Amino acid sequence: VTAPVSAHGRGSPPRLPGDHPELRARVLELLCSPEFEYVSIHDIEVYRARVLEWCRIFAREGLSGLAFPREFGGEHDSAKHVTVFETIAFHDHSFLVKFGVQFGLFAGAIFQLGTRRHHERWLHAAVTLDLPGCFAMTETAHGSNVRDIETTATYLRESDEFEIHTPNSDARKDYIGNAALHGRMAVVFAQLYTQGSSQGVHAFLVPLRDESGRTLPGVQIEDCGWKEGLNGVDNGRILFDHVRVPRENLLNRFGDVASDGTYTSPVASAGRRFFTMLGTLVAGRTAIATAALSAAKSALTVATRYTHARRQFGADGQPERPVLDYLSMQRALLPRLAATCAVHFALQDLKRRLNQSDPVSAQEIEVRAAGLKAWASAHAVETIQACREACGGQGYLEANRLSILRADTDVFTTFEGANAVLLQLVARGLLTEYREEFGDLRLWDVVRIVTGRAATAITELNPIATRRTDADHLRDPDFHLSAFRWREARLLDGLARRLRRSIQDGQNAFDAFAACQDHAQALANAHVERIILESVREGIEQQQNPSAADVLNQLAALFALATLEKNAAWLLEKNYLESPKAAAIREQVNTLCRELRPRAVEVVESFGIPGGVGLGLGLGLGGSGGWG
Amino acid sequence: VTAPVSAHGRGSPPRLPGDHPELRARVLELLCSPEFEYVSIHDIEVYRARVLEWCRIFAREGLSGLAFPREFGGEHDSAKHVTVFETIAFHDHSFLVKFGVQFGLFAGAIFQLGTRRHHERWLHAAVTLDLPGCFAMTETAHGSNVRDIETTATYLRESDEFEIHTPNSDARKDYIGNAALHGRMAVVFAQLYTQGSSQGVHAFLVPLRDESGRTLPGVQIEDCGWKEGLNGVDNGRILFDHVRVPRENLLNRFGDVASDGTYTSPVASAGRRFFTMLGTLVAGRTAIATAALSAAKSALTVATRYTHARRQFGADGQPERPVLDYLSMQRALLPRLAATCAVHFALQDLKRRLNQSDPVSAQEIEVRAAGLKAWASAHAVETIQACREACGGQGYLEANRLSILRADTDVFTTFEGANAVLLQLVARGLLTEYREEFGDLRLWDVVRIVTGRAATAITELNPIATRRTDADHLRDPDFHLSAFRWREARLLDGLARRLRRSIQDGQNAFDAFAACQDHAQALANAHVERIILESVREGIEQQQNPSAADVLNQLAALFALATLEKNAAWLLEKNYLESPKAAAIREQVNTLCRELRPRAVEVVESFGIPGGVGLGLGLGLGGSGGWG
Repeated sequence: VTAPVSAHGRGSPPRLPGDHPELRARVLELLCSPEFEYVSIHDIEVYRARVLEWCRIFAREGLSGLAFPREFGGEHDSAKHVTVFETIAFHDHSFLVKFGVQFGLFAGAIFQLGTRRHHERWLHAAVTLDLPGCFAMTETAHGSNVRDIETTATYLRESDEFEIHTPNSDARKDYIGNAALHGRMAVVFAQLYTQGSSQGVHAFLVPLRDESGRTLPGVQIEDCGWKEGLNGVDNGRILFDHVRVPRENLLNRFGDVASDGTYTSPVASAGRRFFTMLGTLVAGRTAIATAALSAAKSALTVATRYTHARRQFGADGQPERPVLDYLSMQRALLPRLAATCAVHFALQDLKRRLNQSDPVSAQEIEVRAAGLKAWASAHAVETIQACREACGGQGYLEANRLSILRADTDVFTTFEGANAVLLQLVARGLLTEYREEFGDLRLWDVVRIVTGRAATAITELNPIATRRTDADHLRDPDFHLSAFRWREARLLDGLARRLRRSIQDGQNAFDAFAACQDHAQALANAHVERIILESVREGIEQQQNPSAADVLNQLAALFALATLEKNAAWLLEKNYLESPKAAAIREQVNTLCRELRPRAVEVVESFGIPGGVGLGLGLGLGGSGGWG
Repeated sequence: VTAPVSAHGRGSPPRLPGDHPELRARVLELLCSPEFEYVSIHDIEVYRARVLEWCRIFAREGLSGLAFPREFGGEHDSAKHVTVFETIAFHDHSFLVKFGVQFGLFAGAIFQLGTRRHHERWLHAAVTLDLPGCFAMTETAHGSNVRDIETTATYLRESDEFEIHTPNSDARKDYIGNAALHGRMAVVFAQLYTQGSSQGVHAFLVPLRDESGRTLPGVQIEDCGWKEGLNGVDNGRILFDHVRVPRENLLNRFGDVASDGTYTSPVASAGRRFFTMLGTLVAGRTAIATAALSAAKSALTVATRYTHARRQFGADGQPERPVLDYLSMQRALLPRLAATCAVHFALQDLKRRLNQSDPVSAQEIEVRAAGLKAWASAHAVETIQACREACGGQGYLEANRLSILRADTDVFTTFEGANAVLLQLVARGLLTEYREEFGDLRLWDVVRIVTGRAATAITELNPIATRRTDADHLRDPDFHLSAFRWREARLLDGLARRLRRSIQDGQNAFDAFAACQDHAQALANAHVERIILESVREGIEQQQNPSAADVLNQLAALFALATLEKNAAWLLEKNYLESPKAAAIREQVNTLCRELRPRAVEVVESFGIPGGVGLGLGLGLGGSGGWG
């Protein structure tokens, strides 16, 4: 081991810089203890029980409620909570999701959507896991489009109660974690009706089971059964048949009903109220993004070590060559390794922002969390797949863990917001510059403003820059940053112009936007990638150790150039690149792969994943298989 | 249902044209019978026993040996055998792989590498499954590089026997299907030693277990355990400790040892002999390609039906819209649907060629099978992933089958030749124009010839064609074909020139080729895609029904344009396209997606997959999930 990637690491091996190193070390130590060994992942009963037990241990150790105020056992530090989550992701994703459902979504909703009375009565029990709970938002017919869920919560003045009801089978709560077995209460999202009219979606605390685990009257629960992965989580479907709860069970921070049925809210606009309530998902999306990153790091650690050691073929009379020496293998792994390191910095940055959510920056953080969740989860799925293939048949053996990572994290692209939907949300956020809530987008006004602004941000193309193909220029961080910024600004400008034309032609905003989904998606990705590049550049500037800065510079350059290569068609089309430069970028990606090859093992060691977590790090890898 | 895609289909729904419709129908009927229902895929003992039973039923029904001559229960028709395999892939992939190991690899090796005495003694028992067997080629340390396997088979003149031996633990046979439980004999690939010298890799019949299933002396077998998927297949590791077999157990078609130890072979060159023996894999690679295609068809059937029915979001005051109406969903599914239909024709064509393998075309077919296996398996992995994501949380439920397809087929990119290695093999085949065996590539001579030839194949660019952006031109099959041919020829020419330069500069052939792997991979893909496009065009020309020809034309155009879009950067770089044309191609892909949208369900119905196979076709899909 030559040089540390970071000064944060204590001893060997060096570490990528990260927040809360002591907390991280403590969580890892716990996860490597015998209590966290697996019993079985193929016996679903055993696995689910084990995962519940792991949640209990974390609660007992005071690691479940760091996001909440001290009086409820925490430190009021969302970033620390995410760090715990991010670190659990090195171990087991069923545990991760169960932990997230109980302490992030269920307890988080009580804290964020409830008021003092809810906090005092329920929050402590949620944090200690004395009250296992669910976050019942999704319905069978409404996953992405939550605003149109159909479960009703009707205020009954005569008994001062809400009646929670599932009006049809498509309105059942679906895929709800903790529901099939362990949940005793749920935060149920429902359309609030009072005095004969609807006030939109609100959240209610609804008991599901008694202390002995029996389902309560009027509540019907089905088990979702086996899933691709995450089978340690007991997902279920919940139907309510005129279930009554006290009026006080409305989580009333953003909307309340008086005993006479009068509705009041501190948020005037129904649209803004809805999106404010969904704000509870921001920490969850950030957490999922970090967990996806942890999974990608785990996979790359296995695959890099393996392809470094595994030999196959060679020149006549020479020893066989490590497969990571081959260009096609470097191409498959190293740009993904570089992107993984780059997004690491962006997520550290996003975590820090979680704790400073003033109303002004809140919507910007929402957009950023949505974009990074979509980007990181898609990146994880692709990276884990590449790692599985890089390890050949050995990668397909469960003992070597890649297949489990793959199966568990696949749904990260779907839950907490489907990626395709989140990317559209990012594009809308950029178009509105966070000034409007996404729901009530007055597209026409907004588009006029943005078009003017974005156009000025697109600097004139410099004919010399579009042609330069020398290594100094291609590796210059300023070139990378300006290319990423130009790409984002140009896509934003183009999208705004297209929308303006459509609306001028009389199309409604919905159809106009729908016709540009591919453009919007390209913009959202360009936005996220610009943020990632800026974050890694900032991280490098703070780096004291020259050798670490050197390898980080190579990784950042590889991330930047591989991203430009992936988007070369569009950049050529828009004359940002000329042909020889596109070819030179491709060749420079190859050069960077070859340069980084000797430091690849050192880079994955900087992730600091101990061999004792999860099913281990595939250390038993002995060879790659064909198939007899 | 408006118009049939093919006249082959009897009744409704219409079918894509395919060989052996009666055989296919018979196999599907059998697969839908109660004997093929699942008991469990989570109890590995139960699943493995069930899969063995399914193999027995197929043997009993005379469906296991169609590739072999009539005297051994077959029809000497490899294409029919592949059709059975392709159809099984609609049901269960563990069954598929076990079937392939027993009847394709084990029996196939006896037939192709053995001679009359082996056929008479063993082939019938292999085909009836009275003799369950293994194909023991891969070793722990040698998967792709089979030529360097280390298991030895030493001729002992004193006893007229071969001694099979595993010299070190990395030389154990690894990942061998049928080995952990059921195999009683194996075709073992080993380095043949006689009279003190090595004659290279040969295959030997080696008994593993007695009739009661007990492992024989000197044979040690381990179970590979749980895998990502295919857990109905009992993969194992085999070690041999000086195990003796009679001299007659050498499969001696391509090399024999006389009782005095003299080695003889009808194939003079050791390299050519080795690749001739590997020729047994051609039918296997073809079969894997067709199975990957079947899996992609299954996934697209589920996802297309679901996204056609599933509604989410909509314009204000309008009903929610089917999610397949959205451009981003069309973009995710429809180009993959088009590619699936296109490769269908290429694989039908490849199947037909299997039966006419004269020595001249044998190497061309080998290259084609390698390329199509790599292309189709990568396509299947990507397509199934896209389908899983398109179905959201519902796609993640095991009951809806996509996750099983995903887990089972993931290893298709690895077994029967890792894709990255196969693509390099394709590129070598093109460079040598099939005139030399790949092993003894005299690169310098070959490259000189190819360079001259390929250069003349690249027609001068027509400045009008590079600029035309009208729909007539963009949809013109001649434009597509000429673009695909130009791309392949240009990549071949470029690769040959690069290699020539490197060799002139004194680099050895191995290093010269290794430095161009990305280029070689691009060439191999271009070659396969050209073959696919030509096949689908031929299929359309034979199409009698105008409505069917119409939809096939749209699908072929979408495949062609989406492929050009994916490679637009390179085409722009080489000035084959100009910017406005690249933009027009992108827009035309969108247009074709919108046009094909209303016929998408009809297209997946043309695949003719009955709902009763496998775990069903996800017909229970009721809604897409988020995650509570």
